[in-house]
Amino acid sequence: MKMHTRISEMQEALAVARGDKPADLVVRGGATADVFSGRFEKNDIAIHGNKIVGSGAYTGNTIVDASGKYVLPGFIEGHIHLESTLLAPPETARCMVPRGTTCVVADPHEITNVLGSEGVEYMLESTRDLPMDFFFMLPSCVPATHLETAGDVFGVEDLLRLKDRPRILGLAEMMNFPGTVYGMEAVVEKLLAFGDGVRDGHAPLLRGAGLNAYLYAGPGSDHECTEIEEAAEKLSKGMMVMIRQGTQAADLETLLPLVTPLNCRRTMLVTDDRDPQELLELGHLDHNLRLAVAQGLDPIIAIRMVTLNPAEYFRLYGRGALAPGYTADVVIVDDLKTFRVDTVIQRGRVTVSNGMPIHDFPQPLAGKALRTMHLGELPSDAFRIPATGSSARVIRVMEGSILTRAESRSVKIQDGLAVSDPEQDVIKLVVLERHHASGRIGKGLVSGLGLKAGAIASTVAHDSHNIVAAGVEDEAVMRAVREVERMGGGLAAASADRVLATLPLPVAGLMSVEPVREVIGRKTRLREICADLGSGLKDPFMALSFLALPVIPELKLTDRGLVDVGKFDFVPLFL
Amino acid sequence: MKMHTRISEMQEALAVARGDKPADLVVRGGATADVFSGRFEKNDIAIHGNKIVGSGAYTGNTIVDASGKYVLPGFIEGHIHLESTLLAPPETARCMVPRGTTCVVADPHEITNVLGSEGVEYMLESTRDLPMDFFFMLPSCVPATHLETAGDVFGVEDLLRLKDRPRILGLAEMMNFPGTVYGMEAVVEKLLAFGDGVRDGHAPLLRGAGLNAYLYAGPGSDHECTEIEEAAEKLSKGMMVMIRQGTQAADLETLLPLVTPLNCRRTMLVTDDRDPQELLELGHLDHNLRLAVAQGLDPIIAIRMVTLNPAEYFRLYGRGALAPGYTADVVIVDDLKTFRVDTVIQRGRVTVSNGMPIHDFPQPLAGKALRTMHLGELPSDAFRIPATGSSARVIRVMEGSILTRAESRSVKIQDGLAVSDPEQDVIKLVVLERHHASGRIGKGLVSGLGLKAGAIASTVAHDSHNIVAAGVEDEAVMRAVREVERMGGGLAAASADRVLATLPLPVAGLMSVEPVREVIGRKTRLREICADLGSGLKDPFMALSFLALPVIPELKLTDRGLVDVGKFDFVPLFL
Repeated sequence: MKMHTRISEMQEALAVARGDKPADLVVRGGATADVFSGRFEKNDIAIHGNKIVGSGAYTGNTIVDASGKYVLPGFIEGHIHLESTLLAPPETARCMVPRGTTCVVADPHEITNVLGSEGVEYMLESTRDLPMDFFFMLPSCVPATHLETAGDVFGVEDLLRLKDRPRILGLAEMMNFPGTVYGMEAVVEKLLAFGDGVRDGHAPLLRGAGLNAYLYAGPGSDHECTEIEEAAEKLSKGMMVMIRQGTQAADLETLLPLVTPLNCRRTMLVTDDRDPQELLELGHLDHNLRLAVAQGLDPIIAIRMVTLNPAEYFRLYGRGALAPGYTADVVIVDDLKTFRVDTVIQRGRVTVSNGMPIHDFPQPLAGKALRTMHLGELPSDAFRIPATGSSARVIRVMEGSILTRAESRSVKIQDGLAVSDPEQDVIKLVVLERHHASGRIGKGLVSGLGLKAGAIASTVAHDSHNIVAAGVEDEAVMRAVREVERMGGGLAAASADRVLATLPLPVAGLMSVEPVREVIGRKTRLREICADLGSGLKDPFMALSFLALPVIPELKLTDRGLVDVGKFDFVPLFL
Repeated sequence: MKMHTRISEMQEALAVARGDKPADLVVRGGATADVFSGRFEKNDIAIHGNKIVGSGAYTGNTIVDASGKYVLPGFIEGHIHLESTLLAPPETARCMVPRGTTCVVADPHEITNVLGSEGVEYMLESTRDLPMDFFFMLPSCVPATHLETAGDVFGVEDLLRLKDRPRILGLAEMMNFPGTVYGMEAVVEKLLAFGDGVRDGHAPLLRGAGLNAYLYAGPGSDHECTEIEEAAEKLSKGMMVMIRQGTQAADLETLLPLVTPLNCRRTMLVTDDRDPQELLELGHLDHNLRLAVAQGLDPIIAIRMVTLNPAEYFRLYGRGALAPGYTADVVIVDDLKTFRVDTVIQRGRVTVSNGMPIHDFPQPLAGKALRTMHLGELPSDAFRIPATGSSARVIRVMEGSILTRAESRSVKIQDGLAVSDPEQDVIKLVVLERHHASGRIGKGLVSGLGLKAGAIASTVAHDSHNIVAAGVEDEAVMRAVREVERMGGGLAAASADRVLATLPLPVAGLMSVEPVREVIGRKTRLREICADLGSGLKDPFMALSFLALPVIPELKLTDRGLVDVGKFDFVPLFL
């Protein structure tokens, strides 16, 4: 924009701020959150264009009545993987907007593992022109390890090429904390590429001198704290502590007692992930606010943790508060207990009124992200495991955790082949490389899924999102895998002779193009089928999705083989 | 630096952080300020090169024993005009370093009024390689008004040219708050030139819708609050409230009760100015800390206000805390009451040990800044005032204030000329344009200085720093002015027949090249002489220095004439 135009626009806005001209919109009569002082005040908020021009008493062309209600800055999510919603971004936005979220900082780690920098481009493109602002951190660990095969490599050249693009805020969670602490060249290079920019951390249980080294290298936040002493140490050493309450991990109850008026500026509430059902039924940050306040946190502190604090940390200047010159992202809630959202204003536009979104959401994008399934040849005996011993390393699933245990179990052998042994709760697990059609298949055994028959398969398989499948009969496994391939990615359950239920996730094998309720319905059906097949797990697909993740202890399977996470190397299946 | 070298350096530092190699320096056994959590903890601080690598237990090649003492981050001054010390920057640093100041953000407003962008260059150049870090904000209001003649114009082109230079942090205090509120094009253009960068404010007593407009335009801080309600409103609307306690203005006692654990992140302690005697005898931010804690503020909050808070506001990433990866600026004090500084470490070097600086300070720079005196022709009758009336507008000095009153007084007339009337405490005041040799002289009358004989003259004359002189006999005024001219700027007192005392300020007419004690000695002598000449003011030169400042009410004199500040226009001397 020409300087001359910018000056006239400023002069126009200043006239409104002074009260010489009416505002476009005035939010009248509410108790307004003053996140700077840490209190509420009864005040009008005047909006001109996409910004707040002032608080006090104003006249406006449109009046939003907030009397009896609380007026808050729009909520800012500081750390989420959007892919966890299983929804394409417009549908995610449609769920989040009525919950008061006006801004999200996302790490497109999953889609980048499938598509490389095209994954980042897809996320940028598919989040344009939505009634919510999406910012992104650039994935730091794609591929996550050398022990698996991702869809692409996202290297330091990609980071350098993309880092100054609009809506890119910094480097996403540096998960390779051992590599950071020990100064691995490729890791250090990525951290240095961002200078003193924002670099998110990820360092579960890291303490003491190791933590010092990690921080020295640059990461400035952590969302992986699970113990209060750990969180206290990280906070004291300069990390922004992101208190996570998502679908997978629920740390809020444990960590919230850490937060005090004196240290709250260094904390946030984040989700990290949110599955579609929780997103629809529990909500988003409104849910985390409810929990925090129910646990006794001062509401204004809780509100800061999803407004001013993330805005400051991510250097989103002019966001996170209701003050002159700030972006007009406003949420009106009924009270500070239910946080029921009545009205949302984003960049000065009313997007939610009386709890209902009043904005059209575009369709998901098509393009290359819908063509990511490249499976190699798959002969009918592809899943055979020749038995080279009588006992094996079996991955033990633990309900509600992404950790597994390594168990030593005797193996059922038929005709010299290791086979599933559902009576002993040991069944076959395979990971099929599906990005480069290499035909590579990792094979192993898993216990704890509980399937007595049939199979399940999924392309949601952290971090490389190959196809992971587990099942009793090889034919069932093959059927589930073939169905996933046919859908271009997704979740499937099958018996030996037919497909039982599916959830197509054609966007990179990670996200649906359907509405949230359709996705929830299909997920529910899949869970029911799993129960029918004998699984006692709450969500066997969730468990499945972490069985190929070789950075989380103890034993995992990738397309390249069985991984002892402690040794960070391959181990033979048979003992 | 090549990426390869940066990586090796990082690897070396990480080894130290992990404890695998000894640190260069370890601060051992002190109670260490954790400004993030808001508490103290007994901890070693390990330093490698110019950064902190960790806290905990470390071994080091050099050990600094801090047992029984408190270890704090180096103090950061958020708003000061260095010229107020009357010392060249190296000498200012020599005074500040032993007080624990490791970082200063200065507004070179005074020297820029004399030298334009060359003034900024001088400040940048003369603060290199000192054992303190100097950052600068770019002056926003040079010349301050159209009612006076400055040495140069510092316009938006200069701002744009200099704004991305190292050590330039943003736009200095926007003093033209009426121009901002009313959208004056030249003012708005300067504010817009910095995008969403740091822009300091200056808006004494501005409240309500006017304040909203001012903030909308961009300024993000204020150091001019004098009332607690004013400060509370500014804080609530997003301003960083800089609580000022300097030589001229003392707002700390009034404003400190505003500061609470919940809002303290939005506050700082600053000085704005510090005269040489106070700098030497009271100190710098250590003095402000003492006062704040004596008034009952939690020491850790007070410390935050001169460490983490200014670092965050000015986006000085990696400063303001004792944490891994942070710049190793450390101050060890005996206790949290006297804040007596024992040791200072700046960028990993010990600069003060047992209270004594152990670092050489360079000589002040020479160059163009020493040749700023360009006085026009000055005939012996230059100061004659033909009487065109019998009563006149007289500037009334008020002890201890930079405000003046406008008085209507009858004038003593001899031979058709208005003359000084020391018996009535009305004497002649002149302002001589001294930048462009125009020969322009503003003439007026002043009461309250109290001189019964002789004259005083000075080039410290806010904001344009012309020569301001007042005296009883025209010959004495001429002698004082000539002496100031001869010195290339400075302060002088003279009788009709000789120079009585001087303080040469050859650097732009604002700063000395002598040590602080010499400057204090000469200032003391000047004050004594003024008392001998009859002045009852504590510091007549201080009063003199504000008589040419046409932005502070009520009546002022510039080289262009007498200014009614309320009307913001010239008025005749005679009524």
